[in-house]
Amino acid sequence: MDNLEINDLHVVPCVNSRFIQPSRVVFKQNGGQRTWDYLIVQNSVSCLVFNTTRQAFILVKQFRPAVYMHVNRKLHNKNSGANPVSVKADDSSMKALADASAGITYELCAGIVDQNISLKSLMKQELLEECGYNVPEENIHKITSCRAGVGSTGSVQTSFYAEVTDDMIIDGAGGGNLNEGERIEVFYLPLEKSREFVFDETKEKPLGLMFAFMWYFDKFKV
Amino acid sequence: MDNLEINDLHVVPCVNSRFIQPSRVVFKQNGGQRTWDYLIVQNSVSCLVFNTTRQAFILVKQFRPAVYMHVNRKLHNKNSGANPVSVKADDSSMKALADASAGITYELCAGIVDQNISLKSLMKQELLEECGYNVPEENIHKITSCRAGVGSTGSVQTSFYAEVTDDMIIDGAGGGNLNEGERIEVFYLPLEKSREFVFDETKEKPLGLMFAFMWYFDKFKV
Repeated sequence: MDNLEINDLHVVPCVNSRFIQPSRVVFKQNGGQRTWDYLIVQNSVSCLVFNTTRQAFILVKQFRPAVYMHVNRKLHNKNSGANPVSVKADDSSMKALADASAGITYELCAGIVDQNISLKSLMKQELLEECGYNVPEENIHKITSCRAGVGSTGSVQTSFYAEVTDDMIIDGAGGGNLNEGERIEVFYLPLEKSREFVFDETKEKPLGLMFAFMWYFDKFKV
Repeated sequence: MDNLEINDLHVVPCVNSRFIQPSRVVFKQNGGQRTWDYLIVQNSVSCLVFNTTRQAFILVKQFRPAVYMHVNRKLHNKNSGANPVSVKADDSSMKALADASAGITYELCAGIVDQNISLKSLMKQELLEECGYNVPEENIHKITSCRAGVGSTGSVQTSFYAEVTDDMIIDGAGGGNLNEGERIEVFYLPLEKSREFVFDETKEKPLGLMFAFMWYFDKFKV
């Protein structure tokens, strides 16, 4: 991601989103009237992957627009709604945006549960699609599941752990589904640097990754 | 929460939500056109609290509408949008809803960063408001921060750890901000049952709690 370039950024009204469809529920809780706005979000799977040949974890690195826009949220708040941000490379407002690298995250290999197959089979597909490894299902072990969110969404995230070897690498695979616009970089994190990495707040990481690494450190006493 | 009663549940169109305001960003990433829908969500703080007098963790237990609606999402999908779910206690469709207990979660004491004070001061306020403990700030230690989400939101969650004693209990405090409709129950989890609890998938828990407990188990070797 050293050559990441973000240009011609505009914030526009979000009309008929395929991905964010708010609903509102009205109900009585023990007689008291309540209202709550929420989103139905698909469940997900994620996998902490350890390459035993290289003694390194396999993560995916990508530019996340939602993280980048959160970093730039002050600019956004001033200009959202009726007056969206409209930023060109030659605009002075482009200079107000954070460097594009602020939107780069380190994540576990993960996917959305959008097919009617087992979670393990889905995880195996994602390991090939994102990381370029053909991993036997018997190498993929469920850790546990929990709620990815509880405030606006309530979807379930199932966490897996897999050990892989260089023999499982499929040449030319990995990098995400280009048809879906994914641009994913495989990132090797050496075991001996992993604890420092997890607590390095300059590297953007989601909670699911944090949980999986702490599970690993606890289990394998490293 | 043994007497939890949910009645007269309706799903209605979500118009002008104060809480869910989607935006859309359009940009070029290394020359390729991309579009992403996202939400600006406020940052949050959460705290793993251990009561040394009782040798028990202090969690909060509450009914989470978003979790409950996710459990009932098949019903929702059939009826959302133009034909919202309209469910009364005497409707046959009410019987199709999961038992209200399916929406109960176990969480860390937590709060939204909506005031211009230090994160530690905010955490202290939440410990009083939700748990009913007056905790000195020097007892509240930052663990780390990470992204609560990376897909649709990119907000930062900062995790804390605090040891407290029964001496810090303020009679009559705790239970959440009733003005905001919070109905929170304090839940004591004995240390010796905590590992079993964390991996009990019948207890609904968010990722932030899972991370904090694994951090604790790793740090204190329990």
